[in-house]
Amino acid sequence: MKKEIRILGIDDSSFNRFRDKKVFVIGAFFRGGDWIDGIMTTTARIDGNDAAGNIIKMVKKSKFRTQIQAILLDGIAVAGFNVIDIEELNKKTKMPVIVVVRRYPDFRRIFSVLEKLKMKKKIEIIRRAGEPVKIGKIYAQFKGIKEQDVREILKITCTRSFIPEPIRVAHLIGQGIGLGESKGNA
Amino acid sequence: MKKEIRILGIDDSSFNRFRDKKVFVIGAFFRGGDWIDGIMTTTARIDGNDAAGNIIKMVKKSKFRTQIQAILLDGIAVAGFNVIDIEELNKKTKMPVIVVVRRYPDFRRIFSVLEKLKMKKKIEIIRRAGEPVKIGKIYAQFKGIKEQDVREILKITCTRSFIPEPIRVAHLIGQGIGLGESKGNA
Repeated sequence: MKKEIRILGIDDSSFNRFRDKKVFVIGAFFRGGDWIDGIMTTTARIDGNDAAGNIIKMVKKSKFRTQIQAILLDGIAVAGFNVIDIEELNKKTKMPVIVVVRRYPDFRRIFSVLEKLKMKKKIEIIRRAGEPVKIGKIYAQFKGIKEQDVREILKITCTRSFIPEPIRVAHLIGQGIGLGESKGNA
Repeated sequence: MKKEIRILGIDDSSFNRFRDKKVFVIGAFFRGGDWIDGIMTTTARIDGNDAAGNIIKMVKKSKFRTQIQAILLDGIAVAGFNVIDIEELNKKTKMPVIVVVRRYPDFRRIFSVLEKLKMKKKIEIIRRAGEPVKIGKIYAQFKGIKEQDVREILKITCTRSFIPEPIRVAHLIGQGIGLGESKGNA
């Protein structure tokens, strides 16, 4: 795998449930772990169902679409419970998809909330994403790519912290837009 | 001057005069020419007068405020003709201010438009910013800093192109937000 592998890191903007209806979803397109080649954005409704579809559209119309070698997501949902079907995202974009989470998710609590909100379909989407695998200090779920390649991509892109740089930067931008200033990497 | 000098690069988001009333103003806080430490945002009205004041507020409330060693602006105006008084910006933030432009401005044309728009005060603000000095492939106006130090800051921060990296990244983010995807560095 080349050091300059092209990666799209995706995260949402910070939001306020009392103020906002939708959020920005930010894509930071990187060469390896260092060089930002471009920024793209789309939106997602808070607790809605449009995130996967909007990300697919954003990726497909991007001028970088033929270059992107993997999509990295900061968690399996954006905009609250706008859960992303990574199987669908992988199939429709034909790109490997890697979900990165800092801590092992508390699935019992998440599923219980989703059940109360009558969002059982989202539970199925999360289940289909597979068991998070510990890699370094973080966890990953993935589709369309082998674990060994996921490990290599994380090694190449985690240049500045234990979070892949494309996701760290998408996250800073999302906080900068949503809060006025980024708080940090976490 | 240290290679890791802390620089805030500022640019606005792309906008559409028929659709938008205000734009995002993005601050990318960098260590030298490589490492993004944070992102901050504020807003500015298209052709308004609030850019300098809003940037001053953004900087003063930033957690990075004691670290910022210079503010770099991508041109002297954001949001169309929301011209920034860099003397005021320098005085109120107590930080050196550097305006970077890619081409020598066509002042005759700009002043003629501003006169027709009855925005003569903005002509004065632009005049007070001083004559743009050619440095490398670009031009700079500056307040609260010596030309020699401006040259050094540009040398340290122009790591990826002839544009200082904090401005290049603020620009990509501004295009990503405003257009859906960044077009490039220019």
